[in-house]
Amino acid sequence: MSNRTVYFISDGTGITAETFGNALLAQFETSVRRVRLPFLDSVDKAHQAVRQINHTAAVEGKRPLVFTTVVNMDVLSVFTNHCQGMMLDMFGTFVEPMEQELGLKSNHRVGRFSDASKSKAYNDRIEAINFSLAHDDGQSHRDLEGSDVILVGVSRSGKTPTSLYLAMQYGLKASNYPLIPEDFERRKLPPALAPHKKKIFGLTIAPERLSEIRNERRPNSRYANLDNCRMEVSEAEGMMRREGIRWLSTTTKSIEEIATTILQEIRPERLEY
Amino acid sequence: MSNRTVYFISDGTGITAETFGNALLAQFETSVRRVRLPFLDSVDKAHQAVRQINHTAAVEGKRPLVFTTVVNMDVLSVFTNHCQGMMLDMFGTFVEPMEQELGLKSNHRVGRFSDASKSKAYNDRIEAINFSLAHDDGQSHRDLEGSDVILVGVSRSGKTPTSLYLAMQYGLKASNYPLIPEDFERRKLPPALAPHKKKIFGLTIAPERLSEIRNERRPNSRYANLDNCRMEVSEAEGMMRREGIRWLSTTTKSIEEIATTILQEIRPERLEY
Repeated sequence: MSNRTVYFISDGTGITAETFGNALLAQFETSVRRVRLPFLDSVDKAHQAVRQINHTAAVEGKRPLVFTTVVNMDVLSVFTNHCQGMMLDMFGTFVEPMEQELGLKSNHRVGRFSDASKSKAYNDRIEAINFSLAHDDGQSHRDLEGSDVILVGVSRSGKTPTSLYLAMQYGLKASNYPLIPEDFERRKLPPALAPHKKKIFGLTIAPERLSEIRNERRPNSRYANLDNCRMEVSEAEGMMRREGIRWLSTTTKSIEEIATTILQEIRPERLEY
Repeated sequence: MSNRTVYFISDGTGITAETFGNALLAQFETSVRRVRLPFLDSVDKAHQAVRQINHTAAVEGKRPLVFTTVVNMDVLSVFTNHCQGMMLDMFGTFVEPMEQELGLKSNHRVGRFSDASKSKAYNDRIEAINFSLAHDDGQSHRDLEGSDVILVGVSRSGKTPTSLYLAMQYGLKASNYPLIPEDFERRKLPPALAPHKKKIFGLTIAPERLSEIRNERRPNSRYANLDNCRMEVSEAEGMMRREGIRWLSTTTKSIEEIATTILQEIRPERLEY
């Protein structure tokens, strides 16, 4: 169905080129064939990529879109001189005006992810991923005060993927705790959480959607039953209201939207960057 | 230390604006203060953001850099007409040439992550995250054939964060299996993996770095001891060589680089997108 080929080319991982291109492509109602060409760190590899792109242009009779974040000038010039695709060059477009504004020369450093492994920010991120994994689903009460945020909500309300996303994208130490029937009977938050109320953020979800999700896991169970989901959600929301916990509904939100919203609400001081 | 303030503004999550801006900023040896202003989905919110940016400009005596991916034209025009920052407008720069090339009008749809929760690709990604979590550290042999890739390596060689990144970024079902002393004694891969050899990818690491990482977890343990790390790494590499398993060293690589490299090697058919 695709009527156009799109290339993402980079001398690094190509992750930025892909984000850049996909965000722009999302502005168009069209389907495309995507090809990722990362690590083009030599003139030889550039020529090989250009041959591939020009071949596509010839076969399809339409020039491919080429999203690039190449910073090596020798590699880039192979594309600008020989590539028959439409070049959409993020760095070429914005680096020069930024040089003028900042009064600095750009360093043409390849790959903002390379050498990352030696940086403190990177190691903090890996640490945060490990922390969030160890504190998934109320697994551990240890070092709960080390959390930047503690997500609570009924089972399958989106806590785990959100925690991992917060850790991976923002280096946030995100714990998560399920709210379970015993908590509802006691009408209180899990005792381990009481001292950390300021860090708690609640996730809720429409009972109908929850029942759907749970049915995929355990079809026809009491766990997935709509009435039971209604009861759990209503108890959980009641508890969050009583305890004065901020919360949002995940029903129609992506983990990116949930995580960004939480980040705006929590604003962990550690991350004032 | 920071001599310039940088704003990331968006009518959606701002994740693209941040990726865009941070990639460009990585080209300069300068420290900046970063401010994220997501969800600017009304003219009122835009005016409020403009006041904040203009205040920064006045206080600092230097105009802030403003990376934007705003697509709502009413919101954007508040910035273009009133903002005293330097506007770096990704969509404004590239959407028009793309419209001409594709012969299509852009849809000005806000937020490529919104409505995501209803899309198959999104649900597959969440499914992949759950799969990778359930198959972390050899936890489950169930549905191992459902994996797109199975990472193997000694404990703390980078398998878990890489698996989660592959799931979260690419929707890849990534399992991971530790190689442990019993495997070395038997001189064979864990038996559960034998039928899936084509999907296996190995991670290795320099013993010195491994010992460092393990020492943070369990100081002065046999587990972290350098001689022991040397032995484990040598055994693991020997096994991967004998079994004809592709592998790479994670010592100086970020999870982004590791994941992208694996993706190029494995090229799961499911993901030929």
